Amino acid sequence: MFYHSGKLQYQVRVDRPDPQFAKYLQQAIGGVEGEIRVAMQYFFQAMGARGDSKYRDMLMMTATEELSHIEFLGHAVALNLEGAPLTVQEDAARDPIVHAIMGGADPRHILSSGLSAMPVDSNGIPFDMSHVYASGNLAADMMANAMAEGSGRVLASRLYNMTDDAGMKDMLSFLIARDTMHQQQWLAVIEELGGMQAVLPIPNSTPTEHEATEHSYYFLNTSLDEPTPEGRWTSGPSLDGRAEFTVR
Amino acid sequence: MFYHSGKLQYQVRVDRPDPQFAKYLQQAIGGVEGEIRVAMQYFFQAMGARGDSKYRDMLMMTATEELSHIEFLGHAVALNLEGAPLTVQEDAARDPIVHAIMGGADPRHILSSGLSAMPVDSNGIPFDMSHVYASGNLAADMMANAMAEGSGRVLASRLYNMTDDAGMKDMLSFLIARDTMHQQQWLAVIEELGGMQAVLPIPNSTPTEHEATEHSYYFLNTSLDEPTPEGRWTSGPSLDGRAEFTVR
Amino acid sequence: MFYHSGKLQYQVRVDRPDPQFAKYLQQAIGGVEGEIRVAMQYFFQAMGARGDSKYRDMLMMTATEELSHIEFLGHAVALNLEGAPLTVQEDAARDPIVHAIMGGADPRHILSSGLSAMPVDSNGIPFDMSHVYASGNLAADMMANAMAEGSGRVLASRLYNMTDDAGMKDMLSFLIARDTMHQQQWLAVIEELGGMQAVLPIPNSTPTEHEATEHSYYFLNTSLDEPTPEGRWTSGPSLDGRAEFTVR
Amino acid sequence: MFYHSGKLQYQVRVDRPDPQFAKYLQQAIGGVEGEIRVAMQYFFQAMGARGDSKYRDMLMMTATEELSHIEFLGHAVALNLEGAPLTVQEDAARDPIVHAIMGGADPRHILSSGLSAMPVDSNGIPFDMSHVYASGNLAADMMANAMAEGSGRVLASRLYNMTDDAGMKDMLSFLIARDTMHQQQWLAVIEELGGMQAVLPIPNSTPTEHEATEHSYYFLNTSLDEPTPEGRWTSGPSLDGRAEFTVR
Amino acid sequence: MFYHSGKLQYQVRVDRPDPQFAKYLQQAIGGVEGEIRVAMQYFFQAMGARGDSKYRDMLMMTATEELSHIEFLGHAVALNLEGAPLTVQEDAARDPIVHAIMGGADPRHILSSGLSAMPVDSNGIPFDMSHVYASGNLAADMMANAMAEGSGRVLASRLYNMTDDAGMKDMLSFLIARDTMHQQQWLAVIEELGGMQAVLPIPNSTPTEHEATEHSYYFLNTSLDEPTPEGRWTSGPSLDGRAEFTVR
Amino acid sequence: MFYHSGKLQYQVRVDRPDPQFAKYLQQAIGGVEGEIRVAMQYFFQAMGARGDSKYRDMLMMTATEELSHIEFLGHAVALNLEGAPLTVQEDAARDPIVHAIMGGADPRHILSSGLSAMPVDSNGIPFDMSHVYASGNLAADMMANAMAEGSGRVLASRLYNMTDDAGMKDMLSFLIARDTMHQQQWLAVIEELGGMQAVLPIPNSTPTEHEATEHSYYFLNTSLDEPTPEGRWTSGPSLDGRAEFTVR
Ligand SMILES: [Ca+2]
Ligand SMILES: [Ca+2]
Ligand SMILES: [Ca+2]
Ligand SMILES: [Ca+2]
Ligand SMILES: [Ca+2]
Ligand SMILES: [Ca+2]
Repeated sequence: MFYHSGKLQYQVRVDRPDPQFAKYLQQAIGGVEGEIRVAMQYFFQAMGARGDSKYRDMLMMTATEELSHIEFLGHAVALNLEGAPLTVQEDAARDPIVHAIMGGADPRHILSSGLSAMPVDSNGIPFDMSHVYASGNLAADMMANAMAEGSGRVLASRLYNMTDDAGMKDMLSFLIARDTMHQQQWLAVIEELGGMQAVLPIPNSTPTEHEATEHSYYFLNTSLDEPTPEGRWTSGPSLDGRAEFTVR
Repeated sequence: MFYHSGKLQYQVRVDRPDPQFAKYLQQAIGGVEGEIRVAMQYFFQAMGARGDSKYRDMLMMTATEELSHIEFLGHAVALNLEGAPLTVQEDAARDPIVHAIMGGADPRHILSSGLSAMPVDSNGIPFDMSHVYASGNLAADMMANAMAEGSGRVLASRLYNMTDDAGMKDMLSFLIARDTMHQQQWLAVIEELGGMQAVLPIPNSTPTEHEATEHSYYFLNTSLDEPTPEGRWTSGPSLDGRAEFTVR
Repeated sequence: MFYHSGKLQYQVRVDRPDPQFAKYLQQAIGGVEGEIRVAMQYFFQAMGARGDSKYRDMLMMTATEELSHIEFLGHAVALNLEGAPLTVQEDAARDPIVHAIMGGADPRHILSSGLSAMPVDSNGIPFDMSHVYASGNLAADMMANAMAEGSGRVLASRLYNMTDDAGMKDMLSFLIARDTMHQQQWLAVIEELGGMQAVLPIPNSTPTEHEATEHSYYFLNTSLDEPTPEGRWTSGPSLDGRAEFTVR
Repeated sequence: MFYHSGKLQYQVRVDRPDPQFAKYLQQAIGGVEGEIRVAMQYFFQAMGARGDSKYRDMLMMTATEELSHIEFLGHAVALNLEGAPLTVQEDAARDPIVHAIMGGADPRHILSSGLSAMPVDSNGIPFDMSHVYASGNLAADMMANAMAEGSGRVLASRLYNMTDDAGMKDMLSFLIARDTMHQQQWLAVIEELGGMQAVLPIPNSTPTEHEATEHSYYFLNTSLDEPTPEGRWTSGPSLDGRAEFTVR
Repeated sequence: MFYHSGKLQYQVRVDRPDPQFAKYLQQAIGGVEGEIRVAMQYFFQAMGARGDSKYRDMLMMTATEELSHIEFLGHAVALNLEGAPLTVQEDAARDPIVHAIMGGADPRHILSSGLSAMPVDSNGIPFDMSHVYASGNLAADMMANAMAEGSGRVLASRLYNMTDDAGMKDMLSFLIARDTMHQQQWLAVIEELGGMQAVLPIPNSTPTEHEATEHSYYFLNTSLDEPTPEGRWTSGPSLDGRAEFTVR
Repeated sequence: MFYHSGKLQYQVRVDRPDPQFAKYLQQAIGGVEGEIRVAMQYFFQAMGARGDSKYRDMLMMTATEELSHIEFLGHAVALNLEGAPLTVQEDAARDPIVHAIMGGADPRHILSSGLSAMPVDSNGIPFDMSHVYASGNLAADMMANAMAEGSGRVLASRLYNMTDDAGMKDMLSFLIARDTMHQQQWLAVIEELGGMQAVLPIPNSTPTEHEATEHSYYFLNTSLDEPTPEGRWTSGPSLDGRAEFTVR
């Protein structure tokens, strides 16, 4: 069961409201790299977790934290929308700055939400829950989580560069930090399962006789005119330690 | 900020697992009448709430409760999927009962989720956040919330009839009860705002000079051959108390 | 069966075309607050209406009117797109006004529709029919309709403020007026059903023994540190007249 | 402006209700081959039609007819759902026939719509308006319309085969007939524009100097090992009469 | 099986990068008129093609070509994004040109893709595969393909006008040319099947006794006040040669 | 540029057609775990790849292979649909086996596709391209790819168990094998970049001063009553080697 505290996990401030940055921030709320995604992904994984309860607990605890990230980002969007123009006057309509502000803003922040955050991305596209990846396989799900946090930290780092508002930079530096931790905690589960080599190939419970293993360890060059790109994947022991990589 | 307790708000039990009912229950999780919708709707309304903080608090408290509804429904789905067939044998494939069970189940419960709940409806369609209605107008949002709870209680009542599992019936009777309360609490806000007559027409802040009031109080019969359906809406004082209803 | 007249329900004029306002108007056509939604919602409710035929007729008549709203809004969008630039010259590309106009316009109005309305919202997102709420329960559906008209009138009022074109303001004042009526006519059905108290809780046909009524009348404070927001929902008789509100 | 008559365009009857066929019929309402699509496509094309008003009128008249097709199909769905089981008893749950009926039905017909049609396809997926094709180019739009009616008639013909209900077969034979006409009327517009050769390539207003015509008339064989499939497209005059087809 | 060559089908160049035009070009990649659509449509039609293998081969060959169109358009988007601003300085934020550029760009090109193409349209909406039309009926599918190429050439022609970059105009003239061919090759299949008259009505395999032919050849005037728009569709032999057109 | 060979990468055979398994297989084509997703993901990553060209080549080569996986899976679906009933007779309609087969099949395989594969998942939901993850950050994208292949192999392994058709088992064992390789090749790129420790946190180019590093290395226990789940993530050196894990 969930509970709520009136205190935000991170206290947001915005020095100079910017409706266009409000739109950008929406990507961190309702984008595929955003907080709704991870909150719901960890929540559904937790509900489906069978086996050792510590993974279920860990998932639920971080799901809960991500809900708090949605919350303070919602405040950040609302603060950036303070002072956005809600009426239009004739001369303003000819002012390129006003036109540009409105052109760069999400029209639904003005028309639909009353200057508040929405569960949408930076193009106004609502988040859809097909992006909640929860397979019931622990290793597969940990990879999905590490991936989600990687994309989240890429996004937060880019948002950091797209604002010169000190308050926003502070908030984003907090999100960047938490993404650092979250990436590692999911990969740490894989370490506990024996490390990447031990869990590969995911799922490692598939019986060998269900696999045409003669096709399991070659890189396939499907190019007509490019040489095989040589690398760790073309020779040497496979990462799962079961064979040697080759090329076809 | 959010917190979590290991205790479910409602302790679920399933007497006889039923994969088809697991699929039906998905409507209460990821359908438009479901718990993700209300949890997120109240959450985003709370984040956007300006003015008297008691409405914001009320919204956030109930958003938090709805998250707990998702949680125990997720358990209910998983319990109903216990024992679903994960392998197929030749003779089973010719057994109409097995065929029927599988035909009536959501294939992704077996293929994608590892016998766990997903954020989808009873046809497997992922919830999309466009259904989170939050306009920033308090009366409009309270109507949206009462509507959501009405549709939720209709759904829970129908699900109650579609199972003969005592555990499931108990759980649904709890959900039905909470929907009873939630419907009323949002309508109670409208009472506090002066009652339905006072808030109509929503939004009641629109200046009269922005409205072509000569078109505001007639029912328009667009039928070529049906008489006007007479009722409270065709004569007598308008519900907002500003005029008389007429017909065109 | 439907018929059409060549006369618009409202004769639109635009004094100064504005591609950006054309984009804004799309919200009133293909947004969740828009006319496609209500037209289709009332249409499907009408088709599903069993019982007293007057409600079916009323639904179909207003569905038909809403189709006419789509129609004149479509004209309004096309008129606002008159004169939008369809070719780009080098110097224009460096003109901030031109850049701003194009930045604020929906690119698909130029690329995809030939300067005409599309069934999309102000972010270009196509309307999807999951927003057609039609449960078969009359009271639930009337709430859904009143809600839709509330959000529609909020939108029209905001659009009114976002233009200084007299023609557009006139048209919006007509839409605001019809939304006033439509809100009330659906709520008037609830009055005919005995008033809000009589229809609560929706659906009022659920047998009491299907409800864990000990959970039906308390507001749940899920906050760890906020006091219960006191109001009409925390004490006094419940709105359905069956119990007293309490708090947990 | 639209009007409605209480008389259906086609009077539906169902001899033996079948919830599974109700689900199949949904494809003809809310599928991409269905009636909502053509109704909305012709409607939006009509609103965008500039030039000779007869095409606009023709589009609007047929849009209006398609709305009537939605209407009687909606009745057909409701009639097929008469008698669908709304409660489950223990022994029934073990009856393969009951299981099969429920497995083959759309659960939302029972849970969400109150045994009525929904604007969804036969998998319960809501229609989305991105399928409304309206480019503003008359020839392109006529092709889109002929295509839509072709797919619609394919669907109606398949539905005809999937039922043995005489009432349903009658209704489908009516839809098949109207699709016959509609296909031809859009292609007849192309004849009026000078015939297929004259309108090709669509749009025929593109200046020749905007086209790298040396790439306009060869079929490109991108296969490594298959011979070029010889046909009308590999040699002889091009359909637009401007060049000879070749192969590369 | 597919293979790839390192050589682009068309060698793209961009003389002056333009992030706003990058956004416009997305329509040609991930819009309903774009290359992903035709690539996947021909691919799935090819996989479903039964009967004469030459149509299957033709479909697969052109599907393969369309994949190459996606590829060079992807390069075009990336080249147009070269030099887009990835950081914001305070003074820049007040420069209307910078504001306009950013307002007119797709924010996800900066935030999500690292200045690369995405499988989305010009409003950032991801392509969804419901637009892959493949019915298994050859004539219906050829019409769908001709339609898709018609809308594609309309789009490419409009994009041509919306840029003054010589490199982009060259690339678009190539796409316009290939659309010219592709339109005709699908219509040429219909010629091989006996011509349009022979394939009508699609599907021409529907037995006559499945059709209420008394409804197959009249144009229905559903207008209350407009005269029937006279044309090729109101009198004279039907296009399928089976009857005379009339009007009701 | 792409090319095609008439030879399938894997020669499919089906011993006993099964329309229900055809529906299950759709998950491997158009599901989020399926082949369209990886084909398009690697394709778009390749187009966006800057820097060392070997990664671009590798991505494009495997994208091309995945297209071939779509192709033979498409054949597998079509073969499983051979013999599906396309007409209904009265007595059959009462046969539970027939009912079950139809209940368990995708109705659109019969109504829409002509017994062919569609770009949809096992619930008939069209694939949408928002699942193409391509951030432009190499490490983030490699994680996304390893994740996709992990979920793909989980799916293929489950499908293997859900059929007793020897042909299908053979085909799935091939897919399982290729997923084994693909997982490892993307992780091998990370090894080349210095190993997981070196690339963490993703993106490792974010300047330290953009990160509130005091929040980067603690696991946050948000539970009110559960002890912190102890593990590799609660103490010891962080996986990126920069700090020690702690708990709050
Ligand atoms: Ca986070
Ligand atoms: Ca609830
Ligand atoms: Ca209206
Ligand atoms: Ca029709
Ligand atoms: Ca093309
Ligand atoms: Ca694969």
